[in-house]
Amino acid sequence: MTNALLQNGLFGTLFGDAEISGEFCAEAMLARMLRFEEAWTRALVANGAVDAADGAQALEALCAFDAARFHTASERDGLPVPSLVAHLRQGLAPGAAQAIHSGVTSQDVIDTAMVLTCLSLVAILESRLDRLVVALQDLNARHGTSLLVARTRMQAALPATVSLRVSAWLRLVKAQRDRSSALREDLAKVQIGGAIGLRDAPEGLAIAVSEQVACALGLRLAPVWHADRAPFVTFGHWLTLVAGAVGKIGQDVALMAQQGLDEISLEGGGGSSAMPHKQNPIAAETIVALARHVACLQGTLAQAMIHEQERSGAAWALEWLTLPVMAEATGAALRHALELIGSVERIGTPG
Amino acid sequence: MTNALLQNGLFGTLFGDAEISGEFCAEAMLARMLRFEEAWTRALVANGAVDAADGAQALEALCAFDAARFHTASERDGLPVPSLVAHLRQGLAPGAAQAIHSGVTSQDVIDTAMVLTCLSLVAILESRLDRLVVALQDLNARHGTSLLVARTRMQAALPATVSLRVSAWLRLVKAQRDRSSALREDLAKVQIGGAIGLRDAPEGLAIAVSEQVACALGLRLAPVWHADRAPFVTFGHWLTLVAGAVGKIGQDVALMAQQGLDEISLEGGGGSSAMPHKQNPIAAETIVALARHVACLQGTLAQAMIHEQERSGAAWALEWLTLPVMAEATGAALRHALELIGSVERIGTPG
Amino acid sequence: MTNALLQNGLFGTLFGDAEISGEFCAEAMLARMLRFEEAWTRALVANGAVDAADGAQALEALCAFDAARFHTASERDGLPVPSLVAHLRQGLAPGAAQAIHSGVTSQDVIDTAMVLTCLSLVAILESRLDRLVVALQDLNARHGTSLLVARTRMQAALPATVSLRVSAWLRLVKAQRDRSSALREDLAKVQIGGAIGLRDAPEGLAIAVSEQVACALGLRLAPVWHADRAPFVTFGHWLTLVAGAVGKIGQDVALMAQQGLDEISLEGGGGSSAMPHKQNPIAAETIVALARHVACLQGTLAQAMIHEQERSGAAWALEWLTLPVMAEATGAALRHALELIGSVERIGTPG
Amino acid sequence: MTNALLQNGLFGTLFGDAEISGEFCAEAMLARMLRFEEAWTRALVANGAVDAADGAQALEALCAFDAARFHTASERDGLPVPSLVAHLRQGLAPGAAQAIHSGVTSQDVIDTAMVLTCLSLVAILESRLDRLVVALQDLNARHGTSLLVARTRMQAALPATVSLRVSAWLRLVKAQRDRSSALREDLAKVQIGGAIGLRDAPEGLAIAVSEQVACALGLRLAPVWHADRAPFVTFGHWLTLVAGAVGKIGQDVALMAQQGLDEISLEGGGGSSAMPHKQNPIAAETIVALARHVACLQGTLAQAMIHEQERSGAAWALEWLTLPVMAEATGAALRHALELIGSVERIGTPG
Repeated sequence: MTNALLQNGLFGTLFGDAEISGEFCAEAMLARMLRFEEAWTRALVANGAVDAADGAQALEALCAFDAARFHTASERDGLPVPSLVAHLRQGLAPGAAQAIHSGVTSQDVIDTAMVLTCLSLVAILESRLDRLVVALQDLNARHGTSLLVARTRMQAALPATVSLRVSAWLRLVKAQRDRSSALREDLAKVQIGGAIGLRDAPEGLAIAVSEQVACALGLRLAPVWHADRAPFVTFGHWLTLVAGAVGKIGQDVALMAQQGLDEISLEGGGGSSAMPHKQNPIAAETIVALARHVACLQGTLAQAMIHEQERSGAAWALEWLTLPVMAEATGAALRHALELIGSVERIGTPG
Repeated sequence: MTNALLQNGLFGTLFGDAEISGEFCAEAMLARMLRFEEAWTRALVANGAVDAADGAQALEALCAFDAARFHTASERDGLPVPSLVAHLRQGLAPGAAQAIHSGVTSQDVIDTAMVLTCLSLVAILESRLDRLVVALQDLNARHGTSLLVARTRMQAALPATVSLRVSAWLRLVKAQRDRSSALREDLAKVQIGGAIGLRDAPEGLAIAVSEQVACALGLRLAPVWHADRAPFVTFGHWLTLVAGAVGKIGQDVALMAQQGLDEISLEGGGGSSAMPHKQNPIAAETIVALARHVACLQGTLAQAMIHEQERSGAAWALEWLTLPVMAEATGAALRHALELIGSVERIGTPG
Repeated sequence: MTNALLQNGLFGTLFGDAEISGEFCAEAMLARMLRFEEAWTRALVANGAVDAADGAQALEALCAFDAARFHTASERDGLPVPSLVAHLRQGLAPGAAQAIHSGVTSQDVIDTAMVLTCLSLVAILESRLDRLVVALQDLNARHGTSLLVARTRMQAALPATVSLRVSAWLRLVKAQRDRSSALREDLAKVQIGGAIGLRDAPEGLAIAVSEQVACALGLRLAPVWHADRAPFVTFGHWLTLVAGAVGKIGQDVALMAQQGLDEISLEGGGGSSAMPHKQNPIAAETIVALARHVACLQGTLAQAMIHEQERSGAAWALEWLTLPVMAEATGAALRHALELIGSVERIGTPG
Repeated sequence: MTNALLQNGLFGTLFGDAEISGEFCAEAMLARMLRFEEAWTRALVANGAVDAADGAQALEALCAFDAARFHTASERDGLPVPSLVAHLRQGLAPGAAQAIHSGVTSQDVIDTAMVLTCLSLVAILESRLDRLVVALQDLNARHGTSLLVARTRMQAALPATVSLRVSAWLRLVKAQRDRSSALREDLAKVQIGGAIGLRDAPEGLAIAVSEQVACALGLRLAPVWHADRAPFVTFGHWLTLVAGAVGKIGQDVALMAQQGLDEISLEGGGGSSAMPHKQNPIAAETIVALARHVACLQGTLAQAMIHEQERSGAAWALEWLTLPVMAEATGAALRHALELIGSVERIGTPG
């Protein structure tokens, strides 16, 4: 699944975000999956669930993993974990092979790797939101006292200053930034349920082993949440808020840039093949489109909650089809917003 | 805007919820709008912003409001507040008229009334979630040890007990219930911004007056959030989680009720006009449809974030078009879930 | 299922459309369901599948139907047909009772009634589109030569005339109007499949009887389409095109009405509770919100295609949850567009 | 914009479709854009709008285009056409430079290239639908008389044969296949409007030149449709019908494959990392997820109708963000359906 039009190079980086998409690359995802498997094996050893020598061999195999020699069988299995586990166990004696992945299941590996990915994405977006807050504070400091007519329902309302508008942007961006700590708390749970969500392996040691794994990964151990997809849906919700906040800014800038209103001047601006005199507010429009796309995708993602029985292939896949796109679109929207605010030459009318 | 098919009586109460829709009736909404106006007038008086006698007359007019004599002009104004304010001020001397609504705007009234509505809805849904938790605990107590094959990716996975499935339902429902206190905190903010979001009236007294209004309404005073629609979008998100959680239960029950699986027996069950022998799991299917509808509507609601300038008529209306429907559908889904769990005669196979 | 906020009277008729919602009222829906049942009974008689005397009694019962005495059991059955059939057969001798509904199923009745409803809705919307075409032609005739700056990507592009803009509106509206005849063709199919979609009753006479029913209802007989929901999804698609077309006009008008652009003057216009001097383009904004709502609902409706097995309660309900709302919102948007175009006092600058 | 998770290789080709995505690659898109430009230049020459020698030079430059040396400036311009035109004109004398692109605009190039792309996609999907029809006919021929219980509302309804189910699939697939000729007709229009949609260049020759271009590209010349996005939205609608049709088949197969029902046996089937005995119906579940994703994206795409003024950057981008994904997901769903039907070893119970 790609967006083959927007990633073919002809649209440059307009709709994408390399830092965000990098978090989903094979190397990054495999590294997180292997971190889980390694933590699991170490915890099995530490709790005496497997023989130390077997564990040592298993860990060696995990360390020696060479992505170039790994072939996924996701077309057959629906996800890469079964073939990854088979690859890791290849050539190992039975005891060592059993020191890898025994007691957990594909979903434990994938969900936990996705949790770690989401946390990385939150960190990236937080950092951009922080920079956007600074950029908006700076804009306010430089132009806050300039005159700007307040507009409600797209009509001139009352005379005001730039600070009215930019302060609203600031509050909006800060408010979504402030939501990230609760989101992190919601997300930072290891997934360990085993084959059907009982979290009962290894026998008698399941909790001790699970707690050690959580600790090693910087996550906490909560009740099994195999079939509760709310943490990922809530991550998507936060993305809609962040994308929507910069979407509002983009929409405002596109309106301010209209000739007749002339409330903002931007450095740069896109050219037209037929009208070279034009300076199109490309970034502003792109942000609006991205924000709408992210919002609508949440309508798809939220259906992942209807996750039947002990594990749903169909509902689970909805998360994979939407979350990476939502994250990248949100990242791209934030990137554009930073550039847009940085490119303001004039906003309002000097008073 | 109705759903004229599903409310014409032919479908009975299948897709609706009278308790939820009652929270949006004219009487309830007007009462909340008048609570805001009354609190505002009282605070103006208490802070010396209006003359006490004028304030007393104004409060009298507010108390004497007779819904039957009020005619909205929303077709002209886009919302009922301008005509409501004109109606309230009718016949008052200028001073008393100015003691009503001066310094606030339609959005302050509507948004605050919607906040109060959402808080009432949260309370209703919390209470149903609590009852659902009890019903599931009871189901688990009665049938938890019965045998049930665990199923992943719609395939038999391993032998297990009913408790595996029902405990997952319980955790899922509890988890969404536990989210409501953070949601309440997010929602419980008075909206006071005035014409363009400056919160600058009455001059020099704006904060004192606003704080008193917030206190009177049991809300807190946060920075102006005119253009930050995240609280309402987050309320919608919670509805998708609640509806999704019971949607998962509905989907599971519909699957369990299949002949061949025969994992559940329900009291009642719908008839067929062509096949009188059938017992259709109507409630289970209806829950799934409602949950999907709520999820998808969140994709619309989230676009309300793209709220241009100081007030957007178009973006704001998206909230009104979606939130009442999402709330009622979630309420109906929960109601069906309670009945469904209450109607279980057998689940799994006695061990 | 309602939208209890927008139908409580406080918002007047802003978001609704009485002519459209009237097509879904109990009386209209029951009349269509009874038309189907009557046509079926007549065809059974005409083809000798039931005794003439039994048929006459059955037809008498159908004619004597009194909605006031009918109680639906949709909460139990999922739809009103089983209780309707039981009600109709009440008190009839077995032979006469069997002359009603025998060989068909609830879905045949509901789907065919919905087809007839959709065709009525198409007629209403066609008539409004025709009036909108005339209104736009008239607007073009009166103001087409006035000056208007063409705008692309929200930027002034080149000097032009009002005719450029209004002709684009005209082409857009006409183009969607022109799609309705193919849509009618797609929709105008009777649904007759019987219990499981075999269309095998009455034995040996199924085709003859079905053809007569189709003919009596002004529909055609196509292969059984129980599980092919494309006709209804395609009706929804047409609604998105119609709503989207007027949504574009609404968005354009809202932009043209901005102070600074001042490209249009409208009679009327909404008031503000805080700023009595304002003239808000309420209708224009409302159209945009309605168009977006209709578009997003298509994302839900299209999922009705995933209609499992011989009949899906959950997928089917998605149609009922969305189509009536989409139709009413589209109707309301068209109504507003007609008023909006009729209220234009000036557009562009007299040349 | 990517889906970096699903295209990183770890999920193999499960969610993608190389043939579909290939239609959007840079080479294919550039080739279509150059076909348009070449046809335009040839028509300018043939109609005497440019000097023959200038035209010859221009055509030479068009032929000599080397993608490897072309650098897009879409980040600045919002799309690749302005930089492409500048690149093509580089080093040409003014007369020859003017023989390229003069009188048309970026949207003419992009929209026409997208029309050609959509037509190619229709051809690919038609061919797969045809193969699916054959596969289903074959399945029906081999297993149609086997016994299968008909199921409505997820409940056993009546005894029936496999033919009941497979014939419904066949009708469903054929019905969507039959829609493609009307779709082709709808789509096959060249976009020529020039800077603001007037189609007035070259002066006095616009229609003649435009007709020749249309003819050269195998398209027809219809009134300018710059601001009428219905053809692309209707293409998306068809994708939802096709994806939905195979989504229904996928859902049915996933249900039939349940132990307890055991109505189908499939060759292959996915493995589980924790339960090696399982045979998961991966393809069936994946189809369902893809179909839901395509359906929901239509809710986004349909908003592209709200395309403000003479050209909207924000609304236009919604088409690019959704259509390529919808096409690839539909292609992947069809591919899986073909494999799924081909892998049926048993369906129903031999009678």
